Amino acid sequence: MPTSRKIRLASYPEGLPKDSDWELTEEEVPEPGEGEVLIANRYVSLDPAMRGWVSPLPSYLPPVQPGEVMRAGAVGEVVASNVDELPVGTYVNGVLGVQEHTVSGPKGLRVVNPELAPLPTHLGALGMPGWTAYFGVFDIGEAKPGDTVVISAAAGAVGSVAGQIAKAHGCRTVGIAGGPEKCAMLLDEFGFDAAIDYKNDDLRAKLKETCPDRVDVYFDNVGGPVLDAVLGRLAMKARIPLCGGISQYNTDGKPVGPANYLAMIAARAKMEGFLVFDFYARYDEAVDHLAGLIADGKLVHHEHIVEGIERFNEALNMLFKGENTGKLVLQVGAAA
Amino acid sequence: MPTSRKIRLASYPEGLPKDSDWELTEEEVPEPGEGEVLIANRYVSLDPAMRGWVSPLPSYLPPVQPGEVMRAGAVGEVVASNVDELPVGTYVNGVLGVQEHTVSGPKGLRVVNPELAPLPTHLGALGMPGWTAYFGVFDIGEAKPGDTVVISAAAGAVGSVAGQIAKAHGCRTVGIAGGPEKCAMLLDEFGFDAAIDYKNDDLRAKLKETCPDRVDVYFDNVGGPVLDAVLGRLAMKARIPLCGGISQYNTDGKPVGPANYLAMIAARAKMEGFLVFDFYARYDEAVDHLAGLIADGKLVHHEHIVEGIERFNEALNMLFKGENTGKLVLQVGAAA
Repeated sequence: MPTSRKIRLASYPEGLPKDSDWELTEEEVPEPGEGEVLIANRYVSLDPAMRGWVSPLPSYLPPVQPGEVMRAGAVGEVVASNVDELPVGTYVNGVLGVQEHTVSGPKGLRVVNPELAPLPTHLGALGMPGWTAYFGVFDIGEAKPGDTVVISAAAGAVGSVAGQIAKAHGCRTVGIAGGPEKCAMLLDEFGFDAAIDYKNDDLRAKLKETCPDRVDVYFDNVGGPVLDAVLGRLAMKARIPLCGGISQYNTDGKPVGPANYLAMIAARAKMEGFLVFDFYARYDEAVDHLAGLIADGKLVHHEHIVEGIERFNEALNMLFKGENTGKLVLQVGAAA
Repeated sequence: MPTSRKIRLASYPEGLPKDSDWELTEEEVPEPGEGEVLIANRYVSLDPAMRGWVSPLPSYLPPVQPGEVMRAGAVGEVVASNVDELPVGTYVNGVLGVQEHTVSGPKGLRVVNPELAPLPTHLGALGMPGWTAYFGVFDIGEAKPGDTVVISAAAGAVGSVAGQIAKAHGCRTVGIAGGPEKCAMLLDEFGFDAAIDYKNDDLRAKLKETCPDRVDVYFDNVGGPVLDAVLGRLAMKARIPLCGGISQYNTDGKPVGPANYLAMIAARAKMEGFLVFDFYARYDEAVDHLAGLIADGKLVHHEHIVEGIERFNEALNMLFKGENTGKLVLQVGAAA
């Protein structure tokens, strides 16, 4: 019997996830039932949101239970099919889990066009992070040409796309990232108008310098002191799409709220939480927009590929330590 | 020469304002110049926002400078006039300061109709607090019939109006106030569907009990632990009009941000700061709506009147200690 490997949750992590929080199992490859396909997964997406999924606290999705396969977006190839519309050889994207093979019905699977971009890109600029950037910048952030758009975790999978689509839309873009290397990347590769190194710069002084007309849109991926600093520099009627708060995800204690939140009154600003899933019906619109920018050379994207399902925990921790550059994916099974 | 009294700022308060932070002066009553009127002030409004106006930090209005007359809304009677449209005997409302007489041009003065309600009410339910409630509930909060609307500082000038206009609009209203007396008032006088005593109740448990369908609109006047608790009980697409944060105004240290703010992501909720001044062009619309509700017996309002300009600091502190019931006003000069 052919077997394949899976990552199951052993126990809920405290703080940063450890190897012992997971169990790597080798199990028989299942057969697809009626109306199902068998997918050989190629790349598994690593996302900050995963930390919330392995917290026992209920959130927008039910927590992964100990013993279950770890939840993850992934892209793979249909290798056995009982679904007419998804013949063998089709590439699909979905919540396929951290495992080498997945059996699934057609619901929740999106067909991926490998001619638009290599498979890992469909987990990055053309996938969930790209869609998140697109709906966050335009629908929640209401970015208009001429706006100053500030983005945190700007070298990351979502932030790097958010900056470039805002720039292509005629916005002034300021990226915040940790360390001189990432900041150089913001300027040289992703075309931000300015970069702020939150680890080394005086955040408030740099925001003042790089945002002379204050901040119209702040796309927040991090929370913490960065959010507080930007709250002190809001333009009138500023919009803050609240995408994540990675600085707060691994704290064992209570997260720290933005002490400067009352600045939103003077600025008549709004902060709005959003999840990309709500825009499901419009994913194609996002892919069209993003693929168009890639074709025009206006959307540079990097995938940071870690090889081997056994390195899942190591790769996940790279996210929280800020060690990845671009979209972090785990290559599982054979490369495509 | 006739004289009248004024309250001038002596120095910026630290924490709760003290008597020594103010100077009570007796000065000559000025003559109105060309295009000006002399107003004998009758009632001066006491508002939480005053605390921010005597902080040296710049905000939506420039700070009051030491030596200047304290800024305040007030209602008074024109007693000498060089403005045709504002003859002697006209009642007006404006930012007239904590003083017995004010000379002013017509700009910023609104004529008050004393037949709609007694003068103090024009500083309360028919004045700035009433307008704030109206635009906060409907424009920022987008309250719809059937929504659960939670209001903090619900026995206060803004909160008591917000609750009643939401209720009249078909919302379920839950008021939060400090102490059993205020909570009884919420239920018995202001017609809230439920009341929560933040000083004695378990906030989270009570919110769960009184908001079985969670919270669609949270009209926040207080910030702090109350805001945090409500963030844990948001309905999908909840709106949080951010009106004030009185729990944070007199802290000498950094204010405490809402630790639960990331709950806004799962709830796809938005928090929006607003200032009533932005709705200046629509004040008449608010007065019409509110006066209509008063005429129909659907808007109960209380004014808490403290007599004597010399009691300004004492009255202001009643606000921050939660000792007032209803709109707090200072009667200056002769009663109307």
